[in-house]
Amino acid sequence: MPETKYKKTEDFNEWYNEIVELADLCDKRYPIKGMNVWRPYGWKLMSHVDKLTRDEMIKTDHQEVYFPLLIPESSFKKEEEHIEGFGSEVYWVTHAGLNKLEERWLLRPTSETAMYPMFSLWIRSHTDLPLKTYQIVNTFRYETKQTRAFIRVREIHFFEAHTCHVDFKDAEKQIKEDKDIAGRLFQKLCLPFILSKRPDWDKFAGAFYTISIDVLMPSGRTLQLGSIHQYRDNFAKPYEISYEAEDGKHKNCHQTTYGMSERILGALIGVHGDNKGLVMPPEVAPTQVVIIPIIFKGKEKTVLDSCDTLYEKLKNNGIRVHVDKRDITPGNKYYDWELKGVPLRIEIGPRDVEKKEIVLVRRDISEKKSVSLKSCVKIIKEEFRSISEDLYKNAEKFLKENMHRVKTVEEAKGLKGIIELPWCGKEDCAMEIENILEGNTLGEPIEHVECKNVCPVCGKPSKTWMRYAKTY
Amino acid sequence: MPETKYKKTEDFNEWYNEIVELADLCDKRYPIKGMNVWRPYGWKLMSHVDKLTRDEMIKTDHQEVYFPLLIPESSFKKEEEHIEGFGSEVYWVTHAGLNKLEERWLLRPTSETAMYPMFSLWIRSHTDLPLKTYQIVNTFRYETKQTRAFIRVREIHFFEAHTCHVDFKDAEKQIKEDKDIAGRLFQKLCLPFILSKRPDWDKFAGAFYTISIDVLMPSGRTLQLGSIHQYRDNFAKPYEISYEAEDGKHKNCHQTTYGMSERILGALIGVHGDNKGLVMPPEVAPTQVVIIPIIFKGKEKTVLDSCDTLYEKLKNNGIRVHVDKRDITPGNKYYDWELKGVPLRIEIGPRDVEKKEIVLVRRDISEKKSVSLKSCVKIIKEEFRSISEDLYKNAEKFLKENMHRVKTVEEAKGLKGIIELPWCGKEDCAMEIENILEGNTLGEPIEHVECKNVCPVCGKPSKTWMRYAKTY
Repeated sequence: MPETKYKKTEDFNEWYNEIVELADLCDKRYPIKGMNVWRPYGWKLMSHVDKLTRDEMIKTDHQEVYFPLLIPESSFKKEEEHIEGFGSEVYWVTHAGLNKLEERWLLRPTSETAMYPMFSLWIRSHTDLPLKTYQIVNTFRYETKQTRAFIRVREIHFFEAHTCHVDFKDAEKQIKEDKDIAGRLFQKLCLPFILSKRPDWDKFAGAFYTISIDVLMPSGRTLQLGSIHQYRDNFAKPYEISYEAEDGKHKNCHQTTYGMSERILGALIGVHGDNKGLVMPPEVAPTQVVIIPIIFKGKEKTVLDSCDTLYEKLKNNGIRVHVDKRDITPGNKYYDWELKGVPLRIEIGPRDVEKKEIVLVRRDISEKKSVSLKSCVKIIKEEFRSISEDLYKNAEKFLKENMHRVKTVEEAKGLKGIIELPWCGKEDCAMEIENILEGNTLGEPIEHVECKNVCPVCGKPSKTWMRYAKTY
Repeated sequence: MPETKYKKTEDFNEWYNEIVELADLCDKRYPIKGMNVWRPYGWKLMSHVDKLTRDEMIKTDHQEVYFPLLIPESSFKKEEEHIEGFGSEVYWVTHAGLNKLEERWLLRPTSETAMYPMFSLWIRSHTDLPLKTYQIVNTFRYETKQTRAFIRVREIHFFEAHTCHVDFKDAEKQIKEDKDIAGRLFQKLCLPFILSKRPDWDKFAGAFYTISIDVLMPSGRTLQLGSIHQYRDNFAKPYEISYEAEDGKHKNCHQTTYGMSERILGALIGVHGDNKGLVMPPEVAPTQVVIIPIIFKGKEKTVLDSCDTLYEKLKNNGIRVHVDKRDITPGNKYYDWELKGVPLRIEIGPRDVEKKEIVLVRRDISEKKSVSLKSCVKIIKEEFRSISEDLYKNAEKFLKENMHRVKTVEEAKGLKGIIELPWCGKEDCAMEIENILEGNTLGEPIEHVECKNVCPVCGKPSKTWMRYAKTY
């Protein structure tokens, strides 16, 4: 039985680094730093998250596509801000076999510059719009900061939706839909989040504006899980994505993107886990229920048969279930499955078989109860709902307790989490506060909030609130 | 309505090149040759094929993993034959941002050299064996020959299973299992295939032996869809993949791999299609049934309601169904869905609604019949079975008619398809025949077949049959 060296409640960062490997999510020993191996348990978890994303895409009429990984340097360089933003963090392919390529190709850091030359060919008329596509692929970024599994890696499992619209207004509708998608998706993952409109100097390279999706980690740092971008026609112009309108005029498309990454796993691990290991939300748990036979001599067959029958019953009811028949003690089995965060454990011993009962144990609160075999499917599904609700509530409570709206830098100092301060709108003032708080700007709240105060730096009237936090 | 320029029965290769784009499977206009864009319809088709593969992997206890795309040059160079075989066709990443990398990295052409250094860490004891893993990823090969969608591309959608075993015998059991998997999978795809043991000079770089999975395309050329490799301990030695046996001794693992690629789509398109377009086997058809309302003035609502009701009914019965309500003529709709190869078309007009009937049209044989609404689910599912059987039978008939076992080169000349000739076992003799027939060696039949003849080149007694064909 492996031992956990670190406690989440004592040293979150070390606990995190340890648990991702102990729980068999990934292996960090691959010989390229920041490129980790996805082990079966981690890959299953990611696949379940991808499944939820795909369900949302189907529901909102997005079509899945796949664009090549490699992008010619000339396609990449068409939008000026974009190349400035990404130029220093892309990987270059320069040779094929023994030959030098005529033009260098880069590994996609994101797919705007792969897709948009094609969109320019695909879109002719207003009847081709809106174009709503997405892909789930790996992207590559040359990270120079310290890497961390799922949170800061160099090969990134990535979701990216790209849409084209007749005008700004229709693109804005898409932004609204994206926010709704995030709401539904992160509810299922039990991850409350905040949406912030990034300041101009920190928006996506080429965007008109950027909304970031952030969660608060137990360390008090925020983790950005995704972003929604309004491009206006910033890319449509250089990539010539235009259409013939109903009145016969040629117009540029307006575009949006919505991106999320494997950081979602980082948040699932960090927000829900505890000192015993992972705690998986039932919606995405690779195994939702584990059955542990409690065997006494002479009663083996009765108990194992009963476990098998229950396994079939749960499986036929759409529950992801596993029977652990390994030849080790039940205690060791409990330890393993707690580490992996399986939401519900079922124990079945000879007396349970006699009484036609099972013992249900919740991973999140260790609550134990006997329930009748007959009604167990219904009860298990209720428990799933209840676990999800509790995970969400706990995370929401933590988020609320650690969001502070204050008026002066003095009040802000020493506060943990997300801090909102009045802001006049000038970059210099925000930078000054970043320095004092040793944090980063997250952006303004996206809903309009009255802020009749003064900027704590320059003393001029404030236009809005600005959020600051230490970030991953 | 787009027009097909080429007929499959007249110019197969041009028909193929045209249909992959007309049917919206891919777009070949991406600015890097041999790297095509997967359009939604093509991607869905590939996803359905992947789903069948994953089902087989689950059934046989393989675990899905994901290994990094990039491989350090030093990991790649550990197995001599392997680097010789692949060295000239890999892409090299040499720079990150503005920096030159200390060591070059290559894009995976296949993942042996990414996985095996890790397997060496994962495997300690005989209890860790067998290790059965797989991944579905893109691989990259610098093709210098002419590219062709799905058949010869430079970014390849790829399935690769990698297994480790205690000894050669256990690895041989895996080869048997792989052959069974291929049998079940290609049955569902209605693709009869042949298995050939590759000659030594043409086996996978580093393998002990290689079995290839080939189908015969309508052009008379074979298309290799996959291969199964027995590695013995050829890789285990340089990569130090060993384990402690029950008797305490340290031994090398024996390994196998099983690979398949997007060429499966090439075969689906080529083998089943016809002059009207694709013909999709029901198991993987992105849309299995399309409903076309036949609308007459005044009856629109009745017909459309009836279509919607049927749509819900079929969907709830697990059928992938679409209602085409576009404002174009039924004839144009037929044309579109025939091009895309949807297995069954349903037509519903006012008289059908009155009679509580629908008209069913099979894509493969254009057979039309009226069936009662009440029993239509059952009949549709029977039609799916019947279509699959017919597609398989037709392909099998073609394969059988075009496999020729002859004794002399004279008899072989001018024959189309796959030719089997007696073979003495020497490379030179096989090469001589390759030259005469302008074809390639496929390999020996994997089941032992008596061949008491003489080699048609050197006149010495033949050991076995050798297969030759023109290949893609």
